[in-house]
Amino acid sequence: MSRYERGAARIRELDGENPERRQEVYAALARIAPDLPRFAVEFAYGDIHSRPGLDPARRELVILGVLVGLGDTRQQLASHLRSALNAGLTRDELVEAVLQTLPYAGFPRAINAMEVLSGIGTPRSDG
Amino acid sequence: MSRYERGAARIRELDGENPERRQEVYAALARIAPDLPRFAVEFAYGDIHSRPGLDPARRELVILGVLVGLGDTRQQLASHLRSALNAGLTRDELVEAVLQTLPYAGFPRAINAMEVLSGIGTPRSDG
Amino acid sequence: MSRYERGAARIRELDGENPERRQEVYAALARIAPDLPRFAVEFAYGDIHSRPGLDPARRELVILGVLVGLGDTRQQLASHLRSALNAGLTRDELVEAVLQTLPYAGFPRAINAMEVLSGIGTPRSDG
Amino acid sequence: MSRYERGAARIRELDGENPERRQEVYAALARIAPDLPRFAVEFAYGDIHSRPGLDPARRELVILGVLVGLGDTRQQLASHLRSALNAGLTRDELVEAVLQTLPYAGFPRAINAMEVLSGIGTPRSDG
Amino acid sequence: MSRYERGAARIRELDGENPERRQEVYAALARIAPDLPRFAVEFAYGDIHSRPGLDPARRELVILGVLVGLGDTRQQLASHLRSALNAGLTRDELVEAVLQTLPYAGFPRAINAMEVLSGIGTPRSDG
Amino acid sequence: MSRYERGAARIRELDGENPERRQEVYAALARIAPDLPRFAVEFAYGDIHSRPGLDPARRELVILGVLVGLGDTRQQLASHLRSALNAGLTRDELVEAVLQTLPYAGFPRAINAMEVLSGIGTPRSDG
Repeated sequence: MSRYERGAARIRELDGENPERRQEVYAALARIAPDLPRFAVEFAYGDIHSRPGLDPARRELVILGVLVGLGDTRQQLASHLRSALNAGLTRDELVEAVLQTLPYAGFPRAINAMEVLSGIGTPRSDG
Repeated sequence: MSRYERGAARIRELDGENPERRQEVYAALARIAPDLPRFAVEFAYGDIHSRPGLDPARRELVILGVLVGLGDTRQQLASHLRSALNAGLTRDELVEAVLQTLPYAGFPRAINAMEVLSGIGTPRSDG
Repeated sequence: MSRYERGAARIRELDGENPERRQEVYAALARIAPDLPRFAVEFAYGDIHSRPGLDPARRELVILGVLVGLGDTRQQLASHLRSALNAGLTRDELVEAVLQTLPYAGFPRAINAMEVLSGIGTPRSDG
Repeated sequence: MSRYERGAARIRELDGENPERRQEVYAALARIAPDLPRFAVEFAYGDIHSRPGLDPARRELVILGVLVGLGDTRQQLASHLRSALNAGLTRDELVEAVLQTLPYAGFPRAINAMEVLSGIGTPRSDG
Repeated sequence: MSRYERGAARIRELDGENPERRQEVYAALARIAPDLPRFAVEFAYGDIHSRPGLDPARRELVILGVLVGLGDTRQQLASHLRSALNAGLTRDELVEAVLQTLPYAGFPRAINAMEVLSGIGTPRSDG
Repeated sequence: MSRYERGAARIRELDGENPERRQEVYAALARIAPDLPRFAVEFAYGDIHSRPGLDPARRELVILGVLVGLGDTRQQLASHLRSALNAGLTRDELVEAVLQTLPYAGFPRAINAMEVLSGIGTPRSDG
């Protein structure tokens, strides 16, 4: 299996029944920088996320932490919170995970992250 | 159980057999700002870390992510990597967790974090 | 007086005649994470902001600096600029405070902060 | 009075009886980039810090906040904490100011800043 | 030529046939902080950007890097991408420059920057 | 040519006659995370840095900007300043590039970067 195929397989898992948002983002990026979504699939997902040794849910907890620590990545945080739900974390666990950023990233960034989470439904909520 | 006791109990769990480092840091802080280590125990550990709903190991994965996203917190990262080991994560899982920050925080911060991890032994290595 | 009461008293002072914005933010947060607004009241205001030794106006100048240094916290900056006015700082003093961030945080973040300030009226402007 | 003179006068006020540290830093910078210390004097101090409308002590509180928010500026933080003391703030007020960053910048950066402050003596301590 | 004139001349070069956006931003800033746009012209452009020793295009590549590294400066990034085009960089070169931030600033910030670039037309596209 | 070979060729170009520092860093990383230096070679250099469309010197200017914007990456900044010299930029041009970060990243980070640059000799200075 190529890096691309491995990454795409992991993405399918994380997108669950709602792959459309990512497809739109990647299509828009591909119009200006055709290699950029490919790098995301191959490197971020094919090389890194799909490695053995840590399950997808725990990987998404690390990513959630990084994104809250960076600030300024609201769109990516929303996307990864949805991935985390599809990886098997519950919404209550994600609330806990965002609260856990509070002493380290401070109230403003934790509150901003909680507001993003509050806009994310449970997976398959519309089914 | 008071907030302080709850926090102190969680800290004992996370420090394992090597509580000295934290005690030194807290003692030094207490000399200039007596309430600061108390706030850490009560708020960071008593209010937040010891909440139910997410186990200590997964909380440490979130914290690892935040610290790599922030950068500039080498001492705290070392401390939390030791906590993560005492919370049951293996060194190999922490290597994976640091690698997982790579696509989000970039090579410089991920490499800096890996260098901190490379300086951390396995827990109880001296026992 | 409990930590919560002490924090709530300080918040009433800082919100002045316009407590509605904060109440809405806290109510929205409470729907997803009931403890989060309580932590803000108890810890950020009850433990920290209401400490003696530095008056509320000077505390808000420190907070203004932190938020400009962090970037990416537009909503919190707006809220704290209003608090600073209610703590007795004038709008001209806040203009100076934002200008003072310029050599340290750089033009982009200082300009973003000035734009937030330009959207904030004087307190009681509608009364 | 030129921008340079105005800045140099403010710096003399802020350095108090210990101008040597800054002189060494500026001399080292001047060897590689002769205009850089001049820009600091003219712009950071002559254009900004010496403006009327906010006293030097309150300007230093804003700067303290920015530096804690940025992280990674330990040397500058030490320098500005000394300036703050010379501007009339007490060491206890600076302890309060650093504690005030806690809910916004998080424990790691506030603790790092408190450690820098703990290394700073009272002004004229050697006189 | 005064610092202001030198800065204004460089700005005219970088704004090309579309100076209106910057004029609006500066006019809005001038209403609240009359000296702020002057500082931008005199310091950022008159003292720094118009220095010899590095051409405007390469200066804009440095600025692009800083802004992606900072995150949270979408408006300034858009402005500087337009400046970069007027300084002679092609849109394809800017795509490459944004891709070059990927391993250092991570995917979220590089993708956010690419989305800003995708909203920027070629210069004189409406002429 | 494989991604790895392409990256390694670019690295040889950028390391010039002094490849030892990078080799030591990569060897240390390989002991804890064998794939991490490989990812650096393949992705950061093989996929990105060696792309056509922007020459190595201009890529290093973008990277310099990102690293100053991030702060907290002193080791990587030193490494990339050496790469920039080997890519054909002069020391004076790098001084200009660091000065160009001043209005965007602020004095503290620009000064920290200038201090790193002041510790970097000209390439082949020992030959």
